[in-house]
Amino acid sequence: MAKTKRRSDQIREVRMELNYLRNALGSCMICMGGTQVLCSVSCDEKVPPFLKGTGGGWVTAEYGMLPASCNQRIPRDASRGKVNGRSQEIQRLIGRSLRAIVDFKRLGERTLWIDCDVIQGDGGTRTAAITGAFVALADAVRKLQERGALTEQPIIDTVAAVSVGIVNGKYQLDLEYAQDSIAEVDMNIVMTGSGKIVEIQGTAEKTPFEERDLTALLRLARKGIRELSKVQKAALNKGKKR
Amino acid sequence: MAKTKRRSDQIREVRMELNYLRNALGSCMICMGGTQVLCSVSCDEKVPPFLKGTGGGWVTAEYGMLPASCNQRIPRDASRGKVNGRSQEIQRLIGRSLRAIVDFKRLGERTLWIDCDVIQGDGGTRTAAITGAFVALADAVRKLQERGALTEQPIIDTVAAVSVGIVNGKYQLDLEYAQDSIAEVDMNIVMTGSGKIVEIQGTAEKTPFEERDLTALLRLARKGIRELSKVQKAALNKGKKR
Amino acid sequence: MAKTKRRSDQIREVRMELNYLRNALGSCMICMGGTQVLCSVSCDEKVPPFLKGTGGGWVTAEYGMLPASCNQRIPRDASRGKVNGRSQEIQRLIGRSLRAIVDFKRLGERTLWIDCDVIQGDGGTRTAAITGAFVALADAVRKLQERGALTEQPIIDTVAAVSVGIVNGKYQLDLEYAQDSIAEVDMNIVMTGSGKIVEIQGTAEKTPFEERDLTALLRLARKGIRELSKVQKAALNKGKKR
Amino acid sequence: MAKTKRRSDQIREVRMELNYLRNALGSCMICMGGTQVLCSVSCDEKVPPFLKGTGGGWVTAEYGMLPASCNQRIPRDASRGKVNGRSQEIQRLIGRSLRAIVDFKRLGERTLWIDCDVIQGDGGTRTAAITGAFVALADAVRKLQERGALTEQPIIDTVAAVSVGIVNGKYQLDLEYAQDSIAEVDMNIVMTGSGKIVEIQGTAEKTPFEERDLTALLRLARKGIRELSKVQKAALNKGKKR
Amino acid sequence: MAKTKRRSDQIREVRMELNYLRNALGSCMICMGGTQVLCSVSCDEKVPPFLKGTGGGWVTAEYGMLPASCNQRIPRDASRGKVNGRSQEIQRLIGRSLRAIVDFKRLGERTLWIDCDVIQGDGGTRTAAITGAFVALADAVRKLQERGALTEQPIIDTVAAVSVGIVNGKYQLDLEYAQDSIAEVDMNIVMTGSGKIVEIQGTAEKTPFEERDLTALLRLARKGIRELSKVQKAALNKGKKR
Amino acid sequence: MAKTKRRSDQIREVRMELNYLRNALGSCMICMGGTQVLCSVSCDEKVPPFLKGTGGGWVTAEYGMLPASCNQRIPRDASRGKVNGRSQEIQRLIGRSLRAIVDFKRLGERTLWIDCDVIQGDGGTRTAAITGAFVALADAVRKLQERGALTEQPIIDTVAAVSVGIVNGKYQLDLEYAQDSIAEVDMNIVMTGSGKIVEIQGTAEKTPFEERDLTALLRLARKGIRELSKVQKAALNKGKKR
Repeated sequence: MAKTKRRSDQIREVRMELNYLRNALGSCMICMGGTQVLCSVSCDEKVPPFLKGTGGGWVTAEYGMLPASCNQRIPRDASRGKVNGRSQEIQRLIGRSLRAIVDFKRLGERTLWIDCDVIQGDGGTRTAAITGAFVALADAVRKLQERGALTEQPIIDTVAAVSVGIVNGKYQLDLEYAQDSIAEVDMNIVMTGSGKIVEIQGTAEKTPFEERDLTALLRLARKGIRELSKVQKAALNKGKKR
Repeated sequence: MAKTKRRSDQIREVRMELNYLRNALGSCMICMGGTQVLCSVSCDEKVPPFLKGTGGGWVTAEYGMLPASCNQRIPRDASRGKVNGRSQEIQRLIGRSLRAIVDFKRLGERTLWIDCDVIQGDGGTRTAAITGAFVALADAVRKLQERGALTEQPIIDTVAAVSVGIVNGKYQLDLEYAQDSIAEVDMNIVMTGSGKIVEIQGTAEKTPFEERDLTALLRLARKGIRELSKVQKAALNKGKKR
Repeated sequence: MAKTKRRSDQIREVRMELNYLRNALGSCMICMGGTQVLCSVSCDEKVPPFLKGTGGGWVTAEYGMLPASCNQRIPRDASRGKVNGRSQEIQRLIGRSLRAIVDFKRLGERTLWIDCDVIQGDGGTRTAAITGAFVALADAVRKLQERGALTEQPIIDTVAAVSVGIVNGKYQLDLEYAQDSIAEVDMNIVMTGSGKIVEIQGTAEKTPFEERDLTALLRLARKGIRELSKVQKAALNKGKKR
Repeated sequence: MAKTKRRSDQIREVRMELNYLRNALGSCMICMGGTQVLCSVSCDEKVPPFLKGTGGGWVTAEYGMLPASCNQRIPRDASRGKVNGRSQEIQRLIGRSLRAIVDFKRLGERTLWIDCDVIQGDGGTRTAAITGAFVALADAVRKLQERGALTEQPIIDTVAAVSVGIVNGKYQLDLEYAQDSIAEVDMNIVMTGSGKIVEIQGTAEKTPFEERDLTALLRLARKGIRELSKVQKAALNKGKKR
Repeated sequence: MAKTKRRSDQIREVRMELNYLRNALGSCMICMGGTQVLCSVSCDEKVPPFLKGTGGGWVTAEYGMLPASCNQRIPRDASRGKVNGRSQEIQRLIGRSLRAIVDFKRLGERTLWIDCDVIQGDGGTRTAAITGAFVALADAVRKLQERGALTEQPIIDTVAAVSVGIVNGKYQLDLEYAQDSIAEVDMNIVMTGSGKIVEIQGTAEKTPFEERDLTALLRLARKGIRELSKVQKAALNKGKKR
Repeated sequence: MAKTKRRSDQIREVRMELNYLRNALGSCMICMGGTQVLCSVSCDEKVPPFLKGTGGGWVTAEYGMLPASCNQRIPRDASRGKVNGRSQEIQRLIGRSLRAIVDFKRLGERTLWIDCDVIQGDGGTRTAAITGAFVALADAVRKLQERGALTEQPIIDTVAAVSVGIVNGKYQLDLEYAQDSIAEVDMNIVMTGSGKIVEIQGTAEKTPFEERDLTALLRLARKGIRELSKVQKAALNKGKKR
C-alpha cells in the first residue's frame, strides 16, 4: 500500500490485460492504481425491438461492483431486492460513450453486450470501465472480423475516460478514492483518440465553480486521456500478436 | 400548437405558479413551452441514518412522469415491476443541484423531500424540474421561517437549469422535444444565480464535439439561466405578498 | 381555503377542463372541491391476448396519487418496491365502471388506456376519477370518430360516480377528507346517465348499518350524479366547439 | 360431480370443520359446494406502528389461491414476481369485514392474522373465506380467553357473507363458478348475525341494474346469511365440547 | 396429539388420498404423521423454449407452505416481496426426482406442472411432497392415457423419498419436526421402486459424520422407502377402480 | 486451452492466491483448471436477530456469477428482476459447509460474510467456492486474532469440497464443464480435513445409481479432498509469512 507519491497532473499506474477471460468474445482487466475492473464483451445475434429490420446493430453496457470490492461491503442487488441507482447511471454512461465511436451500419444486426465488473474499487471505476471496455470491444470486433462476420471496421475512433477534480483547492488528475471523497469538484471526461469530447459530467460536490476551472480541468483530462490512449493501443497490439 | 417562432438564443415562454398545491409545504407548477412540471416540497422531521446526531439536514428529490405526459404512453413503474433507470439518474441530478445551494447546518436535523412530476413533457423536463424545484424549496423554507422553525436562512444562493445543444449544426438554447430528438450534442447546465457552475452534463449523441463548442454552449446557457433567475425571483416575490 | 358552507345534500363545487393535455388522445382535469384528478386516454391498436381475433376492443384503467397530493407525503411505488393495494383496487373499479357503458364490438380491436392521476386529494378521488375519466373517454372516442377510425358510436350511456356516507349520524353527499375520515358508513355509487346502478360499494367503517340507510344513501347519490352528469355534458359540448 | 339440482334461493351444501390445523390458534376448513377454503388465525403480540401505545389491537387478513385450485392453473405470485391485484382487493375486504365485529380495546395490543387459502375454487371464494374466517376467529378468541389472555369478549357480533346475482335474468343466491361467469350482476353481501350490513359490493358485469333489483338481491342474501349463521354457531358449539 | 410411540426404524403413519381435488388432472393429499402435503398435477400443452421442436416433454415442480402450516406463521412471498430460498431449493429437488423416472420422448411435447403445497408441516415436507407427487403424477398420466393423449407409458419406475438422521446419537427414520430440529445429521434420500438412488442429500447440521453412518442411514432409508412404495401402489390401485 | 490430459482420479491443476483483494478482511482467488472463483470475507460487528444476546456469532455466504463467466452470457439478477434459484441453493450450501467447522461461541457476537464470485466457470464452481472460502475465512480469522479481537481460535477443523460423478459409465474426480454436462451421476462432497463428511449431495441426472457407486465415488472424493487440503495449508502458510 506504500505508493510512490504522484504529481497532481499524473495518472495512476495503469495496466490493461487483454483476453483475461477464456470464454468471452473480448475481455480486458484494467487496473488503475487500486481500481481494478474486468470488462468483457459478448455478442448476441439480435438487436432490440426498435432496431429490428434496420440492418444496424447496437452496443449496450452493464456495470456492477463485487460486494467485497470496497472498504465497506456492498449488498448485492439480488439480496436488496432493488436495483442500484448509481449503477444504472454509470452503465448508461458507459453505453453512450462506446456507442459514440461505433458505426452501427457496419456492425450489422447484432448486439454487443459490455459487462464492466469492479473487482476492486479505489476511485474512478466508471472511467476505468470505459477505457477498459474500449479495449475489450476493439478486440471483440477484431475477432468478429477474423471470423468473417464483419466486412468493414465498425469502430471509427478510440475512446477513453478519466476523472479530474478540485481537491483542497487544487486541480487533480485521476482522483483516487481518498481524494474523490473530499473533492470540491468532481468531473468525468470521455474523449476520443482524436481529442473530441464525447461526454462531460462535472459536479460541484461542495462549492459551485467558475468557467475558468472547467477550462483548466479539461486541459488536465486531455493530458490523461492522451496517455491512456497509448496504453490502449499497446494492449491491443500485444493482443494481436498472440 | 401554433407557436411564434423563437430565435435559437431565446428560451421558451416560461411561467411559474407558486402554491399550486394546498397541502404541500411548498409547491410550484413550472411551464416552459409545452413542458409542464409540478414541483412540491414536503418536510420530514428526520434525517437519513448517516446524518443522525450531526445537527445537519438533508434535501432529496424524486422525479416521475405521468403515463400520458408524452406522445407515447409511458408504463408506470408499479406496473412494469421495475424502476426506470432514466428517472433515477434525473432525480439524483435534481437532488445534487439543490443541495449545492443549501447550508445543511442551518436547516437543522430535517429532510426536505422534493417531488418533481412531469405533467406534460416537451423536452427539458429535468432542467425545468430543477428551476421549479428551487422556487418550491425557497417558498417552503420561507414558511418554515415564518413558523419559527428556522432561525437562519439555509438557502445561500439561487439555482436554475437549462438545456443547450447543437441542432443541425447550430447552437440552440432550451431545446424542445423535436429539437432534442435530432440534436448532435445535448447539454444540461445547472448554475447559481451568482453565475457559478453547479453541474454540467454534455453528451455527444451523434458526433463528438470540440472544446470551442463547449465554450459557446456555456455562454448560451448562461444567458438562459439569467432570464430564468428573474422569473424565479418574480414568482417568489408575488408569493410573498399573499 | 375559506369555503362557503355547503348543505349535506349538496355536491362540492365541480369543474371539468377538457383537453388539459396536448398529447393525449383525450384528457380531462376534474376538480371537486379540493380534489383534483387528471384523467387521460391513450389508444393502443392492440388488445389483451384473451381478446385477440374476436374483433372486440378493451378499456383498462390505472390510478395513482402524486406523492405530494395529500397532507402526508405518499412514497412512490417505485421507491417502496411494491404495488399499492388500495391503488389496484381503485383502478379495477374505474375500469369496470367505464367498460359498463362501452360496446366493445363497435370499438374494434383496440385498447383504450385510461390514466387517472390524483394531483391533489381531499376525499372522493376514486369517484372523481370515474366522472372525469368518462369525459376524457367520450372526447377520445369523438376524436377517433373524426379520424374515421370508428364507424359507430361505441359509448352507449354516460357514467358518473359520487360518494355518500353517514357522518356523525347524518347522511352526507360527496364526503370531503375531513368527513370521510370520521364517517360511520362510506359508500361509493357509480350510475349511468339513465339512472341505473353500475357499481355500489358500501362499507361500515365503524358500525354496521340498516337497509333503510342504504335506501336513503342511494337517493342522495342519485341526486349528486344527476348534477355531475350535467357538468359532464356541458364540458363535452364546450370541447366540441373548439 | 352429480349435484342434486338446487333452487335459486338455496345456498349450496355447506360444511365447516373447526380445528382443521394442529398448530394454528384457530382454524376452520369451510366447504360450500365445490368451493373449499382453509381459514386460520395466528396471534402476534404486536400491533402495527399506528396503534402502538393505544392499548387497542388489530385484525388483518391475507388471501391466496393454491395454483391447482381452479380449472386453469394459477401461477404463484412468487414466480410471477408481482402481487395479484384481485387477491389484494379480496384480503382487504376480509379484513374490513372481521374488524367490524371486533372491539379492539378488549382485544388488547395484539394482532390477529387471518389467512384464507383457497384449496378448491368454484365461485364465492371471498364470501366463503369471510364466513369461515369468522368461525376460526371466534375459536381463536375462545382459546385466548381460556389461557386468560383476554378478560372481556372482544367479539361483539357474528359475521357471514354470501354472493347473490342476476343470472339469465333471474335472481340467484350463492353463485357457483358456472353461474358467476355468465352473471349480468354479481353482488357480495357481508352481514352481521343481527342482520345489519357490514359491506355491500355490487357490480353490473354486463348490464347496469335498477334499484328494485338491489332490494330483491339484498332480501335473498339475508336469507342465505341467516342459514350460514346457524352453521357457524353449530360448528363453534361442536368445537367447544372437545 | 397423543401419539403411540414409534420405534426409530419405523415410518410415521402414512395416508395418501388420490383425487383430492376436483379440477386438477391428478392430485394426492399425503399425510405422514402431522405432515400434510397437497400434491397436484396440471398439464400444459407446451414445453420450455429449450425443448421446442424436440418432440420431448418436461416435468417441473413448485413448492410452497401455507402461512399457518407451522408453529410460527410464515409470511407469504407475495407480502415479503422476495422469493424464499428454501422453497426454491426444495422445488428443484422435487422436479429432479420426478424427472428421473419419466421418459420424456413418450410424454410428447407437453409440460406437467407439479404443485406441492404444505397444508401442515411437522418435518419431512420435501420427502412427503416427492412421495405424494409421484402418486399424483402417475394418476395424471393414467388419465392422459385414458384420453388417448399418450400411446406409451412414460413412467418407467416408481419413486419415493424419506428422511433419515442421527438424533441424540441414534439413527432415526422419518424425522418429525421435534427430532429434525435437534438432529446432528439430517439426510434426505430419494429412491426408485427398484431400489436405486435418485438423490441423496446429507448434511451435518452439528457434527460431521463418518462413512459408516452414511451406510447405516442408507439402509434405514431403504426400509422406509420400501414401505412407502407399497402405500403408493395401494393408493393408485384404489384410484383405478373408481 | 491445450490441457495435458489428466487421469480420471486426478484433480485439475489448482492455485489459491491469498489476499487477492486489498480491502477485504480475508480474500482468496482460487483457480481449478478453467474455474476461477474470488472468495472474500467481510466482518460485521452484528449478528442476525435470532442470535442477539447469545454471545455467539454467525457465518453466512453469498454466491454469484459474473455475466461473462460462462460460454453463454448470464443476465444479472438486477436486470432480470428476480433472484436466481441455483445461486440461492449454492450459497446455502457454502454457508452450511463453513458453519460446520466454526465454534460460534469463540467467534463472539459478529457475522462473517463470505462472498464467492465466479470470475470464470468451467464446472465445479460451488466446490471451488467452498475450498477457497475456507482459506479466505481462516486468513480473516487470523487477522482478527492479530488485532486482538478473538482470544480463542474459532476454527475447529479445515473444510474442502470436490465434485465426483459417473461420466460415460466411468467414475470421474473433479468434473470440468464438458464432463459435468453429460454426466449420468453428479455428486458434490464436502469433507473436513480430518476426513469426516460435512455434506453429500448426489444426483442421478440421467440414470439412478447403486449404493456401490456411492461408495466408489466417495472414495474418489476423499482422495481429491486430501490433495486440496494440502494446497489450502500451503496457501495459508505462505500468507502467514507476509
